[in-house]
Amino acid sequence: MEHSWSNRRVAFIGLGHMGAKMAPHLVSAGIPLTVWNRTPAKCDPLRDAGAVVAETLAEAFSGADAVVLSLANGDVVDDVLFGSDAWKHLREGSTVIDMSSIPPPVATEHAARLATVNVRHLDAPVSGGTSGAEAGALAIMAGGAAETFNDCADLLRVLGNPVHVGPSGAGQFTKLCNQIIVGVTLTAVSEAMVFARAGGADPAAVHEALLGGFADSCILREHGQRMVDRNFAPGGVARNQLKDLNTALAVAADAGVSLPVTDIARGLFQKLCETPEGAELDHAAVLTVVEQMNQM
Amino acid sequence: MEHSWSNRRVAFIGLGHMGAKMAPHLVSAGIPLTVWNRTPAKCDPLRDAGAVVAETLAEAFSGADAVVLSLANGDVVDDVLFGSDAWKHLREGSTVIDMSSIPPPVATEHAARLATVNVRHLDAPVSGGTSGAEAGALAIMAGGAAETFNDCADLLRVLGNPVHVGPSGAGQFTKLCNQIIVGVTLTAVSEAMVFARAGGADPAAVHEALLGGFADSCILREHGQRMVDRNFAPGGVARNQLKDLNTALAVAADAGVSLPVTDIARGLFQKLCETPEGAELDHAAVLTVVEQMNQM
Repeated sequence: MEHSWSNRRVAFIGLGHMGAKMAPHLVSAGIPLTVWNRTPAKCDPLRDAGAVVAETLAEAFSGADAVVLSLANGDVVDDVLFGSDAWKHLREGSTVIDMSSIPPPVATEHAARLATVNVRHLDAPVSGGTSGAEAGALAIMAGGAAETFNDCADLLRVLGNPVHVGPSGAGQFTKLCNQIIVGVTLTAVSEAMVFARAGGADPAAVHEALLGGFADSCILREHGQRMVDRNFAPGGVARNQLKDLNTALAVAADAGVSLPVTDIARGLFQKLCETPEGAELDHAAVLTVVEQMNQM
Repeated sequence: MEHSWSNRRVAFIGLGHMGAKMAPHLVSAGIPLTVWNRTPAKCDPLRDAGAVVAETLAEAFSGADAVVLSLANGDVVDDVLFGSDAWKHLREGSTVIDMSSIPPPVATEHAARLATVNVRHLDAPVSGGTSGAEAGALAIMAGGAAETFNDCADLLRVLGNPVHVGPSGAGQFTKLCNQIIVGVTLTAVSEAMVFARAGGADPAAVHEALLGGFADSCILREHGQRMVDRNFAPGGVARNQLKDLNTALAVAADAGVSLPVTDIARGLFQKLCETPEGAELDHAAVLTVVEQMNQM
């Protein structure tokens, strides 16, 4: 059966760690795809797979029914969308699907600005990492008009499991929820590991024993294993985890909301990021902060 | 094939929420089982299933190759083991497998006292709740001599997945690790839910959207759903969660170990348990503490 998007054009902007694993799924699904990346060499594998490589952003935007963004942060999205005249090439009635993780107020601002030229917008950040991207099994948290979401849901399903969580900005809010849980759970597993060592238990055995009980989680399985192996090559870098917790706590403070456990966890990531080396480690390295404060 | 314990006698002491779901698996595995419970009526289903019901603890202990305990806390284990002369009926070379959750120092004390009469001891607390007990899929964290563990591993496998984590007391230490992760993760999910509401996202949709991403966990799935449904009937009661976090932090303090995130999470459960009603709710009700501190 043909995909409901097989007669529509999609532009995919940003072939970083995540985008490079996401875009090929769209080609495989038979969706006509144009890609653009700031560093053009990263487009080569997609060209080989059958995608069109655009020379310019304006070319990528022109004629696209949906423009998917997978970019590093809000400033980069700002720049790609509005840093040149390229956005004037967006087709009326087309949809910008921003799968980057950016602050909720920036996402709603983008939605409002695009609405002035009758372009629709979904904020649709993801969780699941490069392994989820590669498997086409990302958690996708979408904010925006229900009609826009319904129109794009089949497209997003190629990349994972999209859920419409609310109006514009709600997707980014949900991604921050995700990062709150991820960050705090990492500190919970770290404190448990330190506690286990203090009691003479073998960290690897403890890790194995906890699997299948109520403490079981993606973080325990994947990042707990990194802690056992003391393998802190990223994965998700600590500075991004800190950035997201800072954004969450700033947005919460603006809303008059206090998140006491998240706040203490944030302090541990802050400590990890005080050295440039620490900031570039996997966020599971927050274990080393808990160890150091306990002279381990 | 016959079970390696089908020619040995096992006594099972304590048919509470957990024990009542664990003991039947041993009968089904063809292991000769004797049961005892303080309230004798709770033994009836096991008698119907084919177990022998002991009138007294001494009778249950006599001739057992392994005595499995599933009791409420350290005081009850103390009382069952040493509150009468019953323990003089334990056979030399037999093993007491204590699957209750009790403080590590109490477990090592029991092991030492039983060693004086040549009875072996494993601390083997569990996680997974009544659903894990019913499925025979508990996480079992065992501390004690490797030889004792190896001898009892087949028996424990009938109830779940046993892992030998270290010497006597290490199983209880690992259970506290489990409770640290469970307690802190509950507060993380609570803070994320409150944050989502502040951003206008629908809690049920947020919960669904987070599944499959890195925030996914047993706690998010099971207790997050309780939060969405506002169903705080226990499950695991808040006062037990508080008791375990208090034990963990006291044991940590004795070892000179600081666990800052766990400490803040503990304070939220303390707040929940300030009313007798709150203390008897499911530990997922810690959500209401985060809501109240934010005037929701």
